[in-house]
Amino acid sequence: MSSEASGRTYGASEEATAVGVPFGACPVPFTEATQILLGHGSGGKLTSQLIEELIVPALSNPLLDRLDDQASFEVGQGRLAFTTDSYVVTPLFFPGGDIGELAVNGTVNDLAMGGAEPLGLSLSLILEEGLPIAELKRVIESIRRAAAAAKVRIVTGDTKVVERGKADRLFVNTAGVGVIRPGTSLGGGNIQAGDRILLSGTVGDHGIAILSQRQDLGLDGEVRSDTAPLHGLVSVMLDACPGIHAMRDPTRGGLASILVELARRRGLGIDVDVTKVPVNDAVRGACEILGLDPMLVANEGKLVAFVPPEGAEAVLAVMRRHPLGERAADIGSVGVEHPGAVVVRTEIGGRRILDLPFGESLPRIC
Amino acid sequence: MSSEASGRTYGASEEATAVGVPFGACPVPFTEATQILLGHGSGGKLTSQLIEELIVPALSNPLLDRLDDQASFEVGQGRLAFTTDSYVVTPLFFPGGDIGELAVNGTVNDLAMGGAEPLGLSLSLILEEGLPIAELKRVIESIRRAAAAAKVRIVTGDTKVVERGKADRLFVNTAGVGVIRPGTSLGGGNIQAGDRILLSGTVGDHGIAILSQRQDLGLDGEVRSDTAPLHGLVSVMLDACPGIHAMRDPTRGGLASILVELARRRGLGIDVDVTKVPVNDAVRGACEILGLDPMLVANEGKLVAFVPPEGAEAVLAVMRRHPLGERAADIGSVGVEHPGAVVVRTEIGGRRILDLPFGESLPRIC
Repeated sequence: MSSEASGRTYGASEEATAVGVPFGACPVPFTEATQILLGHGSGGKLTSQLIEELIVPALSNPLLDRLDDQASFEVGQGRLAFTTDSYVVTPLFFPGGDIGELAVNGTVNDLAMGGAEPLGLSLSLILEEGLPIAELKRVIESIRRAAAAAKVRIVTGDTKVVERGKADRLFVNTAGVGVIRPGTSLGGGNIQAGDRILLSGTVGDHGIAILSQRQDLGLDGEVRSDTAPLHGLVSVMLDACPGIHAMRDPTRGGLASILVELARRRGLGIDVDVTKVPVNDAVRGACEILGLDPMLVANEGKLVAFVPPEGAEAVLAVMRRHPLGERAADIGSVGVEHPGAVVVRTEIGGRRILDLPFGESLPRIC
Repeated sequence: MSSEASGRTYGASEEATAVGVPFGACPVPFTEATQILLGHGSGGKLTSQLIEELIVPALSNPLLDRLDDQASFEVGQGRLAFTTDSYVVTPLFFPGGDIGELAVNGTVNDLAMGGAEPLGLSLSLILEEGLPIAELKRVIESIRRAAAAAKVRIVTGDTKVVERGKADRLFVNTAGVGVIRPGTSLGGGNIQAGDRILLSGTVGDHGIAILSQRQDLGLDGEVRSDTAPLHGLVSVMLDACPGIHAMRDPTRGGLASILVELARRRGLGIDVDVTKVPVNDAVRGACEILGLDPMLVANEGKLVAFVPPEGAEAVLAVMRRHPLGERAADIGSVGVEHPGAVVVRTEIGGRRILDLPFGESLPRIC
């Protein structure tokens, strides 16, 4: 096919098991690389090979398969939601999930919190030179599985490679586009005094799962990430009460950061009864040992909803019938007292102001 | 404001000039950090501060300012384009541009190549601990300027921080959503035998500008990146000929990679007259010294269009009247001979098959 390529394998590192196939010998595969090479990010043959042999076949659908620089699809008139998230979690694989599943579910959830059903996701990978191809395959397979489970397609993508030591194995960005369900208007700005605050389940599972994987906490198998796509749960909640004011998924910074941010932004007070916040026993135990407040620990498959009081009971009932809301609870309310602050009623009946930490003990949680 | 924060500045590194402001002393700024700390990615106060004081004010618009997890906007019935790109270019600043401008223009261009006007961009940052805040500000300011010039808004975003040594200063992902101009259908799959191939200007400027910045090539000031938003140029081209078959912006891998990929994918032959491909003198000189083919070097503000022969003259005329198409040229055509291959007529009248390099000499070009 070529009289020109002249062996310009500049990017290949010594770890490559580049097979000595002569350049004229298409269509024999060019390499059987077992690790990511700089050349995989070059825009040349290795890039095509990576994309067309490893990534696209796994995630195949008519939009992605066109391999244009953008996906295009019909939309009806209406409101569109658009979101983005980069994932830098370490380790890449942890109890209950991995970076690929996190990236799909996290972006589906950011859309869902706006009342949107996902139309499509983009997938942008930053790969570190030397990343085992087997590891990349495992992440792509996980993305495929998570996308299928959430009934969403990866419709466009991008792949970059950086030199060894200039990234940490693999970073993933997913952006998402979705169609907002007509008649809903979810947003932090809509929260009103009187709203009930409904939480879909236990808090802290994701953060403690990551921590237990990084440091041997003796929790093997007891704590798993709660990563899950929430748009199905959101859908039944909006069926029960289309006038829900706002939903958020408390990821980095935990439940506390959502509550503090919204109280501050709206200039309203939030009261939370901490005895109503569900926490798994193993998570509670780990938090006690580590001196962490479970309300500050990350989640990846939970939501908190601000619901007008007249709709709260119905919403809570449908949440509890959904597999992702079995342990849903009414944890408090929004009011006009102590504006801008979150006040927590503690286990021993006291009250304390909830505040965010300055930084965090646990980086790269998502 | 808080009786609880108890100084949990776990993420702070020794470079922080954290000011000893007591936690009760809001609204005095918490820190005057001069470098990115892990805590800036925590979801806690430092994260809020970074986003609300540095990023959002610079890029302010009603959609972004809502600070919800997703942007939402009305769309009319029609076709939507959706694209993503991560930017890992090194150095961050180079003659003619920087990573921020590249990220805005690159995603605007990926939308434009689908015939879409941008509705909004997302901005996701991966920051390395220790990145000077001044450098981040400079990139954000550049993003602001590029977005204003391209008349597009940053509508949603995300920020992550990784430990020192786990990234290379700053990676940027921009995804984009746009509305496809009614009546156009641009895509690599539409290319037909007979199409003329129009190139909007000189090739190789971006790649050589990056290379000259990395290694002192003595080209100071002579070669600048061509980064530019192309949707304005695309618009006048589609006015002149709505039936253009496909457009691509030849970035990584250069003009050659676009032509080779499309010839291969469509099973058609492409003929290019290399004497018609405009190359700036300084770029040509640098390529000769370095043994590079300008057709393989990256661009960031050029496009190549596949135009039905009856429309080619009109399209070329409007291109040449546009500031970004002054040196536009008809460089060749699509045919049925030598299917799947690109044949180049050389300066000395010979013919050679154009092929892609296996990897690349110049990683992290965009």
